Amino acid sequence: MGVIVVNTKAYKEGMGENLVELSRIMEKIGEKYEVRMILAVQPSDIRLVSQLNIDVFSQHVDAIEYGSHTGWISPYAVKLAGAVGTLINHSEHRMKVEDIAKAVEISKKIGLETIICAGTSEISKAVACFSPDYVAVEPPELIGGDISVTKAQPEIVKNAVDSVHSINKNVKVLCGAGIKNGNDVSKAIELGAEGILVASGVVKVKERKKIIEEMAKAMVK
Amino acid sequence: MGVIVVNTKAYKEGMGENLVELSRIMEKIGEKYEVRMILAVQPSDIRLVSQLNIDVFSQHVDAIEYGSHTGWISPYAVKLAGAVGTLINHSEHRMKVEDIAKAVEISKKIGLETIICAGTSEISKAVACFSPDYVAVEPPELIGGDISVTKAQPEIVKNAVDSVHSINKNVKVLCGAGIKNGNDVSKAIELGAEGILVASGVVKVKERKKIIEEMAKAMVK
Amino acid sequence: MGVIVVNTKAYKEGMGENLVELSRIMEKIGEKYEVRMILAVQPSDIRLVSQLNIDVFSQHVDAIEYGSHTGWISPYAVKLAGAVGTLINHSEHRMKVEDIAKAVEISKKIGLETIICAGTSEISKAVACFSPDYVAVEPPELIGGDISVTKAQPEIVKNAVDSVHSINKNVKVLCGAGIKNGNDVSKAIELGAEGILVASGVVKVKERKKIIEEMAKAMVK
Amino acid sequence: MGVIVVNTKAYKEGMGENLVELSRIMEKIGEKYEVRMILAVQPSDIRLVSQLNIDVFSQHVDAIEYGSHTGWISPYAVKLAGAVGTLINHSEHRMKVEDIAKAVEISKKIGLETIICAGTSEISKAVACFSPDYVAVEPPELIGGDISVTKAQPEIVKNAVDSVHSINKNVKVLCGAGIKNGNDVSKAIELGAEGILVASGVVKVKERKKIIEEMAKAMVK
Repeated sequence: MGVIVVNTKAYKEGMGENLVELSRIMEKIGEKYEVRMILAVQPSDIRLVSQLNIDVFSQHVDAIEYGSHTGWISPYAVKLAGAVGTLINHSEHRMKVEDIAKAVEISKKIGLETIICAGTSEISKAVACFSPDYVAVEPPELIGGDISVTKAQPEIVKNAVDSVHSINKNVKVLCGAGIKNGNDVSKAIELGAEGILVASGVVKVKERKKIIEEMAKAMVK
Repeated sequence: MGVIVVNTKAYKEGMGENLVELSRIMEKIGEKYEVRMILAVQPSDIRLVSQLNIDVFSQHVDAIEYGSHTGWISPYAVKLAGAVGTLINHSEHRMKVEDIAKAVEISKKIGLETIICAGTSEISKAVACFSPDYVAVEPPELIGGDISVTKAQPEIVKNAVDSVHSINKNVKVLCGAGIKNGNDVSKAIELGAEGILVASGVVKVKERKKIIEEMAKAMVK
Repeated sequence: MGVIVVNTKAYKEGMGENLVELSRIMEKIGEKYEVRMILAVQPSDIRLVSQLNIDVFSQHVDAIEYGSHTGWISPYAVKLAGAVGTLINHSEHRMKVEDIAKAVEISKKIGLETIICAGTSEISKAVACFSPDYVAVEPPELIGGDISVTKAQPEIVKNAVDSVHSINKNVKVLCGAGIKNGNDVSKAIELGAEGILVASGVVKVKERKKIIEEMAKAMVK
Repeated sequence: MGVIVVNTKAYKEGMGENLVELSRIMEKIGEKYEVRMILAVQPSDIRLVSQLNIDVFSQHVDAIEYGSHTGWISPYAVKLAGAVGTLINHSEHRMKVEDIAKAVEISKKIGLETIICAGTSEISKAVACFSPDYVAVEPPELIGGDISVTKAQPEIVKNAVDSVHSINKNVKVLCGAGIKNGNDVSKAIELGAEGILVASGVVKVKERKKIIEEMAKAMVK
């Protein structure tokens, strides 16, 4: 089943009550096209979204156990709040390699799914060694831009798929950066990705419903 | 009015449903003794606690505006979730001086109260220049320990009060680190603090109600 | 005595043998105009420059004592290598407030002079609480640009001088960001600064000698 | 040829003039037993050691090109100062995974050898994807301790060798943490390591010459 992950970052349009409508849209389209919809939100919005009918992820967890870690994002706390998974090492929140390994380890122990982000196919391969559920390859220079990774650097997606699978065939590859429409999604699937990671291209546009439907449709063709 | 801030860190005993009972206890004792009670929680628990009858703080906010800041703690998001304030620069989460200044500035703009933590009286003075609502002085080597700051280093509390007020008389001083009972609280008030910041001494003990009541009582004597 | 601090950053033009010529130019002009010349270099170039006839500073030190701190910049090691001082908290290397306090404390203990950088007059005031030798005020958005701080935001320099001196009259104020010629220097001195902090405006220009002489001349007028 | 890397950290005994004697000892024993000797020092000591007859490494480089990076350790500057290589991601200086990749890439481009440190065999495998010259496996909890990794966790060394070679047969494996004598070294070689990374066990002992000779001897048996 294809996957669409919508990352709301710290966008005004992706916080608090703004999430309710977005979640409803994603839920309906997900059911219609049999595409898995994931909403990655600020930790403080996890409880709100977890009461809706969608899979909610944290945008980050710190590599910490229970204990004296004031103000760091506890994997245990986000799980309790209703998260079913988490992004790790997003390009806006890069982590030390030891912390990536530990954050994945803790997440697995408590049943949080993991998507590790990586900027190149070489780094995608490296982080695949930690056996996350997904690796999301996103060249940072294309994030938030007008040209999708599938057009600008299709070989990165292809190479990421190959090199991740050379390490572990069970790790699925997502791709992101600049993905804006159905064509970009079709191309991603064609290159071997099993889904996409999007942010501004969905959260900050007026016609959210139209775009998400176009993307879901392209995914199942 | 005296203030008791309870920081639940990433303690198992201070997450999710465990917070409901703690909040109820604090609420009742706060009303009885006319002490302001603040509960500083994981971002993912802010929505839960904000529905209870207590002032909820975030344990941290990052110095970010709306925008592309995946996985960082947005002051706007914690405010929307119901937080009325935030800790800043806790000893377990020290910040760059520029980020402290900016986090306070954003917090003020959107109506979040601020408590900046500092480990020495000299640093208390420096951060008072940013005009937060409170400075909480806590020598890191005493945090979580058996001896309270008011016994081990009373001069730090005294000096912090004096030097903070030499910068800005409106900034209130809290003290923390090792505070365990009513005597510690009495001593803090005597030294010029207007309240205390506690964590394990309240969150991880069996007789929470007894301890909190003892502390509140000592505060109003 | 006026002070000109030249920060060579990680510029190709400010490394290794390129420093020898720059140092000689600064030395001669410094003597001629009775201006103190300081060259702030990469740690690996301190030994080279310390054999020349100029005051050499490290561009940074970490807040560490002797011990197990692989790869961090030891104040003791840079002192041994011949540094007489160090920059602290440069806008390209911001530090936690506790580490600024500790780095200054260690530096004083072992006889390294300190210049703490700050982006605003409010932060200049805060770091003056740590009693460094100098505070250098540099609005980050002007660093490396074409308009000098003395033109774009003269009130920042003025306010920094006033607020630093309200804390400690012995702390001298430098200013930096976009300073390119004699006029900029005259204006800085007029606003109360006792010197300037420059980088690309000296290190990356062809006519280094001409520019430095113009700056030194403007300082003693 | 076996390799002994001596990391002087920020030890008083491993700075400035103290390095000259250590370097001479290492040089002679290296020649006698045909073991490659590497001395990894503070950046400010690279120029000093590079004039002696030994391979000098930096303890760290930051992932930066030429430019505006005040106070960060430039690979170009340490190369110019005479370093032939660098440690990367030491347990006391962990790096973001993207920065490890970039630091190795820049180092290769300019001819610096690289030793990436890793705490587990899984992380050793991950960083081997960046094709450094060496991966040094060192469980952080054993560093500086009394029990060597080869005794406490021999399977980590064995697994690191196997998993690194499953990624790239040209990457050599070193091991470290608690290595104190010839027996520890023999065991390391037996487990497939091609050398060792030591620090306090050589730098802070009185009989440096005796210990280094014992280690070199054990390496070539």
